[in-house]
Amino acid sequence: MNNSSEILEHILKHSIQSPVPITYSFLAPNVKGLDGATSILAQHPGAFTTETNNNNDNPASTPSAPGPATAPSKPSFEIAVFAAATETFSQRNLNCSIAGSLERFRPVIAGAKAAGLRARAYISVVLGCPFEGADVDPRRVASLATSLLEMGADEIALGDTTGTGTAPRTKELLSCLRAAGVRDEDLAVHLHDTYGQALVNAAVALEHGVRSFDCSVGGLGGCPYSPGATGNVATEDVVYFLESLGMDTGVDLDAVADVGAWITGEIGKPNASSVGKAVLGARARAKQEGKGQKGA
Amino acid sequence: MNNSSEILEHILKHSIQSPVPITYSFLAPNVKGLDGATSILAQHPGAFTTETNNNNDNPASTPSAPGPATAPSKPSFEIAVFAAATETFSQRNLNCSIAGSLERFRPVIAGAKAAGLRARAYISVVLGCPFEGADVDPRRVASLATSLLEMGADEIALGDTTGTGTAPRTKELLSCLRAAGVRDEDLAVHLHDTYGQALVNAAVALEHGVRSFDCSVGGLGGCPYSPGATGNVATEDVVYFLESLGMDTGVDLDAVADVGAWITGEIGKPNASSVGKAVLGARARAKQEGKGQKGA
Repeated sequence: MNNSSEILEHILKHSIQSPVPITYSFLAPNVKGLDGATSILAQHPGAFTTETNNNNDNPASTPSAPGPATAPSKPSFEIAVFAAATETFSQRNLNCSIAGSLERFRPVIAGAKAAGLRARAYISVVLGCPFEGADVDPRRVASLATSLLEMGADEIALGDTTGTGTAPRTKELLSCLRAAGVRDEDLAVHLHDTYGQALVNAAVALEHGVRSFDCSVGGLGGCPYSPGATGNVATEDVVYFLESLGMDTGVDLDAVADVGAWITGEIGKPNASSVGKAVLGARARAKQEGKGQKGA
Repeated sequence: MNNSSEILEHILKHSIQSPVPITYSFLAPNVKGLDGATSILAQHPGAFTTETNNNNDNPASTPSAPGPATAPSKPSFEIAVFAAATETFSQRNLNCSIAGSLERFRPVIAGAKAAGLRARAYISVVLGCPFEGADVDPRRVASLATSLLEMGADEIALGDTTGTGTAPRTKELLSCLRAAGVRDEDLAVHLHDTYGQALVNAAVALEHGVRSFDCSVGGLGGCPYSPGATGNVATEDVVYFLESLGMDTGVDLDAVADVGAWITGEIGKPNASSVGKAVLGARARAKQEGKGQKGA
């Protein structure tokens, strides 16, 4: 957890602010991880927004939730736990059974809430597991989600870790969660675009009522326990898609495209965002044409 | 048209057959082009299936139309004309006005039908034009489509040449075509994935009733008159998507993924198919794991 701690300390030390509310997720696999986060936060009182006075904000990486365009706000923090929808993935990723992981997460979530922090629970491999195949039981996901919500989790992020989710199975999973009493506003979808279906599945989730979509600029990411999984669906692509439907994401697409090109260049990965590349290409061509002063 | 003629002669000379019906498109921008095609076909009587005895086949590049698994069938041919939905694109691409292009296509389509050939009419830039912007009037597309169908065209391929089509505008265009009396079965959609929306728009078209989808293996293609346009949506991605919805495309996804890797390698272009790369990656990993004899 060194990296998470270092990032958290950096954010707090430099009082990083944003024109729209931003939430940083701190992965706390166990109580020790939670204690690490809360002790760092305690060293910087007032540097962050607690859940209590930030109640109406949606979580991080939710382009569909622009904040009011007021003064820059302090970041807020949330504690994240990662469960898995299959026993094999749980064993490989967490080195314990699903039931064991729930018992481990219970004091983490309770501790986060006691510290005034938002708690986000991820469930990995909800639409396919690299070890157990595509047919992950949606009822198992629903059971996990309700357990985590009952423990106090504020939001469940449904991870299609392998990117093998299809439109019908995404719909089936969300219907199953609804039947189990899980509200759409307590759900986020966390889609990987490995098989190019992320936006199709996002459309299904959107139609179902989900309004929180995880994504990563330039399509960065992946999963060490899911070989071959490419990154999360690119922020640029999700923003373009949502805006194309008439939604106001509050995100500056040009600026995000620049960030995507910059960060992928910095870490030497290909820019995996179709939209990012198209936006930058169109801009370069417009500049070139302006220079060339070609006739009509 | 040298290339089209050479390809046509090659197919006829080598009696290329296929286990499922395949239609080759021959681009005939004018009567001279049509005459070139018919004279080549006349030199190889019996080498191809005419429209008359191939009436129930869907056109080429339609993965949703598997033929009966009987004996290999002869290829069929169709004549293709390319119109454009904006005056500027028509001038740049065809060097004539839209009205002028229609008058040029009239004898081509009539001649094709007289020769017993299918006639396919493409309309480019139906959801965005590199010169006139995104707001292409769907009524203009509908007017063009009805004119071309009245001339005898068997199918209208709606080209989102720039890839800027969005779900709502795809829906609006198809609704406008329906209002103008164009039947779904006379339509194909020809989507480019430049902004990553091709499968989303394909889903809209599918829901509307369209069953013919153009695509290209490995996502090859582009458009010289639409700078920055990437290739057509990849065959691999469309097949995976349609199969994920429970449709039987009749296409062997593994085999198409191999073809995509091969052809993009041959011509030195990146493989633009997410599905192709994921399928090949999964296969390589499975092979590697088999070799390594790792435990469970």
